[in-house]
Amino acid sequence: MPNAKYDVLGIGNAIVDVLASADDGFLNERGLEKGAMQLLDADAAERLYGEMGPGVEASGGSAANTIAGLASLGGATAFVGKVKRDQLGEIFKHDIQALGVHFETPMAEDGPSTARCLILVTPDAQRTMNTYLGACTTLSPDDVVADDVRNAAVTYLEGYLWDPPAAKDAFRKATTIAHEAGRKVALTLSDAFCVERYREEFQDLVENGVDILFANESEICSLYEVQRFDDALQHVRGKSTLAALTRSEKGSVVVSGDEVHVIDPDRVDRPVDTTGAGDQYAAGFLFGYTRGFDLARCGALGGMAAAEVISHYGARPETKLAELAKTKGLV
Amino acid sequence: MPNAKYDVLGIGNAIVDVLASADDGFLNERGLEKGAMQLLDADAAERLYGEMGPGVEASGGSAANTIAGLASLGGATAFVGKVKRDQLGEIFKHDIQALGVHFETPMAEDGPSTARCLILVTPDAQRTMNTYLGACTTLSPDDVVADDVRNAAVTYLEGYLWDPPAAKDAFRKATTIAHEAGRKVALTLSDAFCVERYREEFQDLVENGVDILFANESEICSLYEVQRFDDALQHVRGKSTLAALTRSEKGSVVVSGDEVHVIDPDRVDRPVDTTGAGDQYAAGFLFGYTRGFDLARCGALGGMAAAEVISHYGARPETKLAELAKTKGLV
Repeated sequence: MPNAKYDVLGIGNAIVDVLASADDGFLNERGLEKGAMQLLDADAAERLYGEMGPGVEASGGSAANTIAGLASLGGATAFVGKVKRDQLGEIFKHDIQALGVHFETPMAEDGPSTARCLILVTPDAQRTMNTYLGACTTLSPDDVVADDVRNAAVTYLEGYLWDPPAAKDAFRKATTIAHEAGRKVALTLSDAFCVERYREEFQDLVENGVDILFANESEICSLYEVQRFDDALQHVRGKSTLAALTRSEKGSVVVSGDEVHVIDPDRVDRPVDTTGAGDQYAAGFLFGYTRGFDLARCGALGGMAAAEVISHYGARPETKLAELAKTKGLV
Repeated sequence: MPNAKYDVLGIGNAIVDVLASADDGFLNERGLEKGAMQLLDADAAERLYGEMGPGVEASGGSAANTIAGLASLGGATAFVGKVKRDQLGEIFKHDIQALGVHFETPMAEDGPSTARCLILVTPDAQRTMNTYLGACTTLSPDDVVADDVRNAAVTYLEGYLWDPPAAKDAFRKATTIAHEAGRKVALTLSDAFCVERYREEFQDLVENGVDILFANESEICSLYEVQRFDDALQHVRGKSTLAALTRSEKGSVVVSGDEVHVIDPDRVDRPVDTTGAGDQYAAGFLFGYTRGFDLARCGALGGMAAAEVISHYGARPETKLAELAKTKGLV
């Protein structure tokens, strides 16, 4: 896009993931909904951590994962998110800066510690997320640097930002600045339970405020309170928003005005961990979008990035996506 | 072994690993010796971390990895090592306790932070380690609980303990208590450069004080200042110490008095990361040893555990080794 210093600026919860294996019994005994994200307070997080098996730590956060994917594709990116100045905060900052992402949100000097997400990966490769938001609850509109938003072709926001109250204001500030500068705003609905918590506000955002919507099947069905994907699709088709709807092994559907594209998924021989599939789909899609590719190619790039990330443990690409895209003839 | 509450008590540096990919150029530009471990002070560690790519964090430490492998095999284990009460310290403690390991070394309340090892994994699957010892330098003889040593069939020590000065005294205290209780003491030489730093002391330990010695080819050659493995072997054969000598893809050689066993390696289709191969060999070997298995079977268990760990990223087993051993008819 012309004059954009950044292809995408992401705003999201800055989280360090703790990934551990667990079996279905472990989830059932604790009433944990498989595949969903639930919020924990500090005590509950400590209790669950104490009961989990040994973990592996890695930087995460939904929008931050998308930004990492865009960086891996060769996109110019920035990220806004709040960590505390503690060991996990330093890890988050290191990892995102090491990818070449512009990340200068001031660290919180006191208050709750850096957020972590306790991710339980079951043998069926599904991930169940338990998030302690910690320092993310202190993200404020002041952390949104107006010039960075103006300089980004797309500002990408995660629905999870609706959970920490002040972050919602940061989200709104960014949306206003982006639109005033003639830029695009993208939103991911994040999680079906998140949609349940904020359905009306999200419906309003999709009508007025968001140019590009990312959602998976259960999220978009929850948004319009319908059972079947096709019913949700008909709701979306009437909107001015460009929507990229992901359907796991069924691929994705991209809708824009009268255009509808049904995109086949990339084949994955053995899914290991679905953490980050939606985040990486958004990365691939937005990489194509900011280059002006046609929507089918944007969707194919999304599917490629999602397939890479579910073929291994962890939510960020292990392969250089720019090279993968070249191999597949997508760039 | 009769009356032993623990099969193995490990004493070692309690470290959180930071694993990142790097190419040979990155090592060469910084004069980093591939495959070796170098010690860094806090400033140098921060500098190197700032230059590295994004990482993944996981509990490590040589002896602690061995103890984790023993726990995965179903052994009863304890560990002594020093972390600080900080986020990385809590991660180390969680991970080792979650394996069922008895770990009650008091956390340091002040002083340097929990140790970390910046591990650069090159495309040839080798790992180059850069260690900031931090809180490990405050391990002292007081941290060695006499009853725990008396209750362990084998006390297992890492040569790296020679680096933090007070840890050496803890090492000596443990050796004395173990032998007074009629227990065995095992030592791993850790690293050829570590052997260079403390060659005479290590030679003395092998003569007087250690019952079981673990070393890889370059370590044992360095200990006796010889070029060829067979020359080192002849040195070892004259000693009363049981020696298990690992040779990467050539397998291992186990020597005890007149007995010599040449053990074939387990086949690994695609080595990913050799971090922890020696640590896991020691785990498999000691599991067999504490059950009174013959030495060839101990060596085969070691080879099996080493093969598992080099087939994936990270220094601790991902597969339950007890089940793997059953599949292979080794238990």
